[in-house]
Amino acid sequence: TRLNTTLDEVIVFPIPAALYLVKNLLQYYIFAYVDAPGYQILKNLNIISTGVLYRIILKKKLSEIQWAAFILLCAGCTTAQLKSNSDHVLQTPFQGWVMAIVMALLSGFAGVYTEAIIKKRPMRNINVQNFWLYVFGMIFNAGAILVQDFDAVMNKGFFHGYSFITVLMIVNHALSGIAVSMVMKYADNIVKVYSTSVAMLLTAVVSVFLFGFNLSLAFFLGSTVVSVAVYLHSAGKLQR
Amino acid sequence: TRLNTTLDEVIVFPIPAALYLVKNLLQYYIFAYVDAPGYQILKNLNIISTGVLYRIILKKKLSEIQWAAFILLCAGCTTAQLKSNSDHVLQTPFQGWVMAIVMALLSGFAGVYTEAIIKKRPMRNINVQNFWLYVFGMIFNAGAILVQDFDAVMNKGFFHGYSFITVLMIVNHALSGIAVSMVMKYADNIVKVYSTSVAMLLTAVVSVFLFGFNLSLAFFLGSTVVSVAVYLHSAGKLQR
Repeated sequence: TRLNTTLDEVIVFPIPAALYLVKNLLQYYIFAYVDAPGYQILKNLNIISTGVLYRIILKKKLSEIQWAAFILLCAGCTTAQLKSNSDHVLQTPFQGWVMAIVMALLSGFAGVYTEAIIKKRPMRNINVQNFWLYVFGMIFNAGAILVQDFDAVMNKGFFHGYSFITVLMIVNHALSGIAVSMVMKYADNIVKVYSTSVAMLLTAVVSVFLFGFNLSLAFFLGSTVVSVAVYLHSAGKLQR
Repeated sequence: TRLNTTLDEVIVFPIPAALYLVKNLLQYYIFAYVDAPGYQILKNLNIISTGVLYRIILKKKLSEIQWAAFILLCAGCTTAQLKSNSDHVLQTPFQGWVMAIVMALLSGFAGVYTEAIIKKRPMRNINVQNFWLYVFGMIFNAGAILVQDFDAVMNKGFFHGYSFITVLMIVNHALSGIAVSMVMKYADNIVKVYSTSVAMLLTAVVSVFLFGFNLSLAFFLGSTVVSVAVYLHSAGKLQR
């Protein structure tokens, strides 16, 4: 595979980079309206927006049973995350809902757009494609830092507040970025959404052994619904 | 339709009547192990036991998607009933679980057996069939009263503690008994389980308007899962 890249290939990467930037920035503002557990629950709107945009933009069809499975995936993930005070989410102010929906659409659109770019040139090296996506991501985020945090960076330095955990999280995000782009190349956004959801459940199960967390009845019910959704997604494949 | 009945027709009714009796008596003993909301949640085991016994005894097949829908129905009903303290159910002692499972099996078996009796003679008047079922129910319950509550009935009279609400509940049970036998005659136990579940959800929605109850996020999620289950049950019909 070629490693050099033509301008018309590179020109598409600023779009997902900008979408991810706006979505990541919104993430800080939405906490004015919802708390962290509430945000976790609202984030499941991603599942629906990804499915809808995948259908509209990539023009790929899901069967009716696969749509039913998608609704179940969203309901199951949310159920698994229910806490005793989760009903507070229903009192989220209007602006919070709008932000959550905008974030879900941005995230879904960025995912679907990235899949379209990666799949358009299947012979292209995925690391080269990631390279260009991340170059634009760095440029845009540098701009956001200049606008928002210029004084703080000037006074305290760029790496102020970094700890070992921070570095681990950066490495973790970088590795999962590579993994996600491989999922988008060899599978699609639908598989990405399912695998993210199952990963969320597995993380909770692992936390039981590592940190002594308790699994709630809601978690069992949500996991059951997600498992059935995974089954239905493959059982409901369109006959071709 | 004939109204007189031969012995070999009547001889089958003591069985479901006895099953219902034992199940109803167990209902009082299980409260030594679980509280009322916990019992509501454990009662959803009925859904699974009815499906399994329906399959085994009536030898009717459900498609894989319909089985998936049945699991969803059970998970969805339970989710809709989640309260902030529902996790207590997971601490139910072993005897409580055994009782709950036995009750679910008795209830499922009684339902499936009744369906078999009613369907065996499709030209039979349903009220006559109900008459015989209830005759044996009354005989068996009279026996249970003699054994368990003889002193209380002798001292305070049979109708001690009856109020207007008690009478309304008896009328309600009688009418729903007739409705259930019609569902079993013209449909089946699977339809009965689905309609009971949807009725439970509708009752909660009506309570919002009548009594100002609040619907929880869990209720919305559970209702969504139950709705998808209803859809899947019909979408997943076996091709004949």
